[in-house]
Amino acid sequence: MADFLWQKDTTSIDDRVMAFLAADDVILDRQLFVYDLRASRAHARALANIELLSYDELGRLLGALEKLEEDFERGNFVLDERYEDGHSAIEDVLTHELGETGKKIHTGRSRNDQVLVATRLYLVDALTALDRHCRNSAQAFLDQARAHADTPMPGYTHLQHAVVSSAGLWFAAFVEAFIDNAQLARSTRDWLNVNPLGTAAGFGVNLPLDRDATTQELDFARMQLNAMYAQNSRGKFELQALTAMSQALLDLRRFAWDLSLYASPEFAFVTMPDRYTTGSSIMPNKRNPDLVELLRGSYAVLQGAIAELQGILSLPSGHHRDLQYTKGPTLRATHHALSAMALLPDLAASVDLDRTRMREVITPQMQATDVALELAAEGLPFRDAYREALGDEARLAAITPEESLAKRVSAGSAGQLDLDRLQARLTALD
Amino acid sequence: MADFLWQKDTTSIDDRVMAFLAADDVILDRQLFVYDLRASRAHARALANIELLSYDELGRLLGALEKLEEDFERGNFVLDERYEDGHSAIEDVLTHELGETGKKIHTGRSRNDQVLVATRLYLVDALTALDRHCRNSAQAFLDQARAHADTPMPGYTHLQHAVVSSAGLWFAAFVEAFIDNAQLARSTRDWLNVNPLGTAAGFGVNLPLDRDATTQELDFARMQLNAMYAQNSRGKFELQALTAMSQALLDLRRFAWDLSLYASPEFAFVTMPDRYTTGSSIMPNKRNPDLVELLRGSYAVLQGAIAELQGILSLPSGHHRDLQYTKGPTLRATHHALSAMALLPDLAASVDLDRTRMREVITPQMQATDVALELAAEGLPFRDAYREALGDEARLAAITPEESLAKRVSAGSAGQLDLDRLQARLTALD
Amino acid sequence: MADFLWQKDTTSIDDRVMAFLAADDVILDRQLFVYDLRASRAHARALANIELLSYDELGRLLGALEKLEEDFERGNFVLDERYEDGHSAIEDVLTHELGETGKKIHTGRSRNDQVLVATRLYLVDALTALDRHCRNSAQAFLDQARAHADTPMPGYTHLQHAVVSSAGLWFAAFVEAFIDNAQLARSTRDWLNVNPLGTAAGFGVNLPLDRDATTQELDFARMQLNAMYAQNSRGKFELQALTAMSQALLDLRRFAWDLSLYASPEFAFVTMPDRYTTGSSIMPNKRNPDLVELLRGSYAVLQGAIAELQGILSLPSGHHRDLQYTKGPTLRATHHALSAMALLPDLAASVDLDRTRMREVITPQMQATDVALELAAEGLPFRDAYREALGDEARLAAITPEESLAKRVSAGSAGQLDLDRLQARLTALD
Amino acid sequence: MADFLWQKDTTSIDDRVMAFLAADDVILDRQLFVYDLRASRAHARALANIELLSYDELGRLLGALEKLEEDFERGNFVLDERYEDGHSAIEDVLTHELGETGKKIHTGRSRNDQVLVATRLYLVDALTALDRHCRNSAQAFLDQARAHADTPMPGYTHLQHAVVSSAGLWFAAFVEAFIDNAQLARSTRDWLNVNPLGTAAGFGVNLPLDRDATTQELDFARMQLNAMYAQNSRGKFELQALTAMSQALLDLRRFAWDLSLYASPEFAFVTMPDRYTTGSSIMPNKRNPDLVELLRGSYAVLQGAIAELQGILSLPSGHHRDLQYTKGPTLRATHHALSAMALLPDLAASVDLDRTRMREVITPQMQATDVALELAAEGLPFRDAYREALGDEARLAAITPEESLAKRVSAGSAGQLDLDRLQARLTALD
Repeated sequence: MADFLWQKDTTSIDDRVMAFLAADDVILDRQLFVYDLRASRAHARALANIELLSYDELGRLLGALEKLEEDFERGNFVLDERYEDGHSAIEDVLTHELGETGKKIHTGRSRNDQVLVATRLYLVDALTALDRHCRNSAQAFLDQARAHADTPMPGYTHLQHAVVSSAGLWFAAFVEAFIDNAQLARSTRDWLNVNPLGTAAGFGVNLPLDRDATTQELDFARMQLNAMYAQNSRGKFELQALTAMSQALLDLRRFAWDLSLYASPEFAFVTMPDRYTTGSSIMPNKRNPDLVELLRGSYAVLQGAIAELQGILSLPSGHHRDLQYTKGPTLRATHHALSAMALLPDLAASVDLDRTRMREVITPQMQATDVALELAAEGLPFRDAYREALGDEARLAAITPEESLAKRVSAGSAGQLDLDRLQARLTALD
Repeated sequence: MADFLWQKDTTSIDDRVMAFLAADDVILDRQLFVYDLRASRAHARALANIELLSYDELGRLLGALEKLEEDFERGNFVLDERYEDGHSAIEDVLTHELGETGKKIHTGRSRNDQVLVATRLYLVDALTALDRHCRNSAQAFLDQARAHADTPMPGYTHLQHAVVSSAGLWFAAFVEAFIDNAQLARSTRDWLNVNPLGTAAGFGVNLPLDRDATTQELDFARMQLNAMYAQNSRGKFELQALTAMSQALLDLRRFAWDLSLYASPEFAFVTMPDRYTTGSSIMPNKRNPDLVELLRGSYAVLQGAIAELQGILSLPSGHHRDLQYTKGPTLRATHHALSAMALLPDLAASVDLDRTRMREVITPQMQATDVALELAAEGLPFRDAYREALGDEARLAAITPEESLAKRVSAGSAGQLDLDRLQARLTALD
Repeated sequence: MADFLWQKDTTSIDDRVMAFLAADDVILDRQLFVYDLRASRAHARALANIELLSYDELGRLLGALEKLEEDFERGNFVLDERYEDGHSAIEDVLTHELGETGKKIHTGRSRNDQVLVATRLYLVDALTALDRHCRNSAQAFLDQARAHADTPMPGYTHLQHAVVSSAGLWFAAFVEAFIDNAQLARSTRDWLNVNPLGTAAGFGVNLPLDRDATTQELDFARMQLNAMYAQNSRGKFELQALTAMSQALLDLRRFAWDLSLYASPEFAFVTMPDRYTTGSSIMPNKRNPDLVELLRGSYAVLQGAIAELQGILSLPSGHHRDLQYTKGPTLRATHHALSAMALLPDLAASVDLDRTRMREVITPQMQATDVALELAAEGLPFRDAYREALGDEARLAAITPEESLAKRVSAGSAGQLDLDRLQARLTALD
Repeated sequence: MADFLWQKDTTSIDDRVMAFLAADDVILDRQLFVYDLRASRAHARALANIELLSYDELGRLLGALEKLEEDFERGNFVLDERYEDGHSAIEDVLTHELGETGKKIHTGRSRNDQVLVATRLYLVDALTALDRHCRNSAQAFLDQARAHADTPMPGYTHLQHAVVSSAGLWFAAFVEAFIDNAQLARSTRDWLNVNPLGTAAGFGVNLPLDRDATTQELDFARMQLNAMYAQNSRGKFELQALTAMSQALLDLRRFAWDLSLYASPEFAFVTMPDRYTTGSSIMPNKRNPDLVELLRGSYAVLQGAIAELQGILSLPSGHHRDLQYTKGPTLRATHHALSAMALLPDLAASVDLDRTRMREVITPQMQATDVALELAAEGLPFRDAYREALGDEARLAAITPEESLAKRVSAGSAGQLDLDRLQARLTALD
């Protein structure tokens, strides 16, 4: 089909239909192929267990599947449009290599449970990686928080000066966020870490497949029991996995927003290492924080993929071809989310703050809240103290940022960051 | 402001601005008010602990807060436009009732952590209710699955006849789905069940508030430590809660789709009790499954609310007034989701299947897959068996639906529903 | 149904079902009621034209409908839960007032085309108001652009200093944006300004209703012909209307972002009038630009509503009760969008820029692009000029911001704003 | 960067950053490249007009640009990762081929306006193609409507039997829908058919570029005047274009839903040509309407892309690198939408209805509405007639579907399809 509108399109309607049905499915399957191969080996063993394959046949199938994986990883086997999809490719290759034996691999399975199991393994891996990236990020932010525990920084609400804050408080906010995100990655992984293999087209089969064995071999936590539910969970589990990723990217977006703002010449709180910036094609004077902006924009990729999945899933029970469209957004968004998150630990570690600049923009008025609370502690009803605090300019001006921070003693405040508590939570996740 | 466009709008720009700032915030706060009152009592106790309130003052504040809750529940106190929002209303009422003592309630807190803690308590309650609705639904489906374990039903993929299936398999698919949804409700609740009270405007305060005490009093699982993260989690936690609800509604939508289809006269598999149907204003012959359709449409309410939250949250760290807009979609979607889910157990229990009709639409061709696998079990490579199975019409026609079901022995198939395993998972959640 | 989860819920399942079916539909109908009454008068006339009503009956129906509208507007008739919905209310009231004659109003129509026509009239009005708000906003920005045509302002890309720009360029960007938005409001209105009345439940009726007459009486541009398409367009047209509104709010969001940034103390380019700001409950020193932030957040309301509509509409042809859920997001988002846009002209007019501050942050490096292009104009290949421009610091420092603006002569640049061309486009829309 | 999670990742952080910054941008640019080349020729002419290029230089640049286009189309020039993006590739190639002259092409332009103008031209082409596909689809449906104007078909609301309808009414509903969609494609194209070339990085340049000339040469309807607005419209215009496409896909989804339902064995109203169906990997008896399901799922691709764009655009004025992410969803969704719509005319034309089956499922009760209205026409108040109509079973049974259709005389009903009016609207769009 003509990609470019100005191209002559001489393809027949049948070719166009074929192209539309195939789309880029087989190309997407490259990301699932090793998982499909792994599951195929487990399925072959399950067939041998119930004597649908002899042990000789099993050996040849396992050998051929391992060789195919090796060839694929080394680039000697290319998964491309010669095959309808990755699932068919496996049967095609095995049949080509092993003849009759190859034709047996698909006994008792359907492409429906094949794609389910491969995607499931992929998501489990992806959420494990997400967990790791989140923990690494939390650690990087924690190191920064320790280094800057006492560095005064203006605190903002509504982008207006609020009270004196610290760089430690800012960094530590992301420590706690990414610990939470790591926990979410884990609980999401655990929730969907269940084996659909053996459910075939959604109705199971008239063979006593040992699904407990494949569950164990593939390291799933549990069997996904009901054959129809396995089908119905297509897209459902992907949605939850993408949501877990999006939570991490939500905090990444906020951090990128902060950096974008703090790197502007009017704020001038941070300097970005050169490797994170690029120039302009027309303006010689520019060094732009492009990476930070692309990380900020990354949440939208997840947003789009989530909306796409939500839109597909308005369907009755059972398999429908619409569900093929769950693959693209899932793989695209997962790849994007992990690529973005992989960069965060280094980015967090590399933030270089200008302490002098941050301290000099702090104004006496930013002490007003602390003073009001001091007045309240001295007995004045808070609402009255609130009204008086701004009036005593001398008192406001007398307080240094450092004193202000030291007095902020409620748990989780700038003066009481409790970083050890955060470190303990983080360490507990190792 | 003029609701109707044809109305004369004589309001001044200042009135319009005021109206826009206020919106329906105080009305929405009705749903959060008891949580706000509960947290206010905890905050008062925390202030007394650090001697910012005398025990006499504390007693009067607690008394006034309890009375306010009682008045609110009985309709003697109406939260309305006289107040800027529910948070201000509490301080207003207390000041009106208790004078100077009332003016002290806001010491060391901000509306920012007030709304956070009230919303958090609301979400914890909501997810607990969601868990209960999911378990009740799972049980209702399980009872149906037991009753219909052996009821033949045509199995569909692509809305085309696939293989012989059973009503038990169909019902049991929803058992497993709603057990998963219940578990998700719980893990989501546990994830966000953390106390933001005491973080004030995002920077904590210069008072030694005992946040561990309020955490315990309000039954939170843990303190949300970092004051800025507490602010940054506004919307983030709501998003995760709505996603958990949406997962339940996703399966509800699928079940409603099935019912809508099966209730059509062309399928005619199910009859709906009268209480779930309504008539037409013009067509005397209609009984429409309106409830089922509204349940099907309910997922979209969550979809909209999730998109709305996602759209708001592209912000730097700290509080911004944009975040007020997280309240509407959160409350609206939560109320909708729980109202919908509350109806599911009864709906599931009331599905009345026409066994005769379902059995009569099953055709011999639907045995082809089973026959192919039998041929494979007899030694024919599956791909060859696949090609032969359809040819042997006599063999296909000789198999009854019941025989077909009985032979479907892979775990989670129609012949092997393993309902006890599902019941065990469900019971473990009690 | 229990709004609060802790409330005892003693309602029966039947009451819950009733409550779920009704939801807040009749309350939402308050916004459609006058349109429904207007369409009912047109329908009555159409019935009289084909002698299904005598002229005496017509007179009494018209009288009763006008009185109902008057009562409704004056608050003497309250549309509330006593009625199933606004459509039924009209028939109920007429039957109560006029007996047999009242029972005739629903001849040849269905609630399906009743809600379609009322919503259509509402959307036409709403888009007309949107058009007006966009033009008023464009005019306000244009006045500002004229006043500040020569006011230097730093130009940013990536929130980094780019080149010297002007406040005039910034304001004029919004002039052109809101002219485009006005045009979109109009073309969208024209596109959906078509009459569905007379299509009944989606199949028309066996009466020779004069649909051309109702089309004319209700001021529609054209008849929406096909009865089934009328049903199928429910939600479709709402989506397009909300998209037109969202385009205006997209530019409003960008302007609000700019103001939020420029009002921060680090930028300090603008001061906001007091009426647009509010204080903090805990921080005495705060004046926050709350209105600007709520306007910025408003786009998300539209985003949510659009996602909600998109989610509902995955349905086969014809009416389904799911479509009732198109009403809430449509009315809510429309009301929000128009309320927000109504504030923009005044907000735009009230922006007070600090010329001194804006000029003082402009640095010599911001002349580099201009210098590079001067070198290019002198014959140096641009890519070489680009590399040389930054080196000549003296040359960069010698250029004043005003000189820089004066030389920016390409059409639509700071030195060539062509405001008359924009004024002409705007005037042409009157 | 490791695509597969199990792969060893030995890339350095710098390489990862580079990979993340580049992403697949240059590959996406393949779809924009010819538009970029076309705009580059216009820009070169504009530079020659103001004597920044000699006519000799211009000639060589035009020659080289034409050759590059030819090489690209023939596959002799491959746009790939050797280049940062398509925009840089042009300057690189020209500089390589023409030396000093090549270095001049970028004078007075930025990649910012380069990508804007290329995308704009792409969208104009895409909307022109959308218009054509919509009109072709409308014509195919119109031909079917004529052929089936009198073919009885059960009419459904809520998927329940409503009244007697016709295949003609069903087909004609899509005629009117796709005429509307064609008009929307046009008005959207006209709205965004404006020239951003010459606005550089959002501030214009200090060169008297003749933007009217490039506007004319590139066949734009108008100049997009303001340089900053040109930047701000990035994503904004894409959103509107995708919305227009999504409207067509919304109706395509509805049609696909109808076909999916009508092709089910329980309805059995339509037979799908073999080229639109595929088999199953495990079930020998299946012919699945895969194409119809993929077309149904296609709306979700647009939904995702729209959500992605909406999510990106929460930004202050001017260019930000986040905006690069507008490219992927725009190109992906446009390609998908046009590919899907290109198949619709043939699909519509190929629908093969089973008249006998459709007629036999029509029941006497489906006459009740018509009878009620006949009673009303005879003088009985409609609400009373409604109650009586169902009782007279003999009267209901006596009416044939054909008689019922013949009496349905309101405009746009089954008996009054007014296909000539639709044909006239369609023809007027040629």
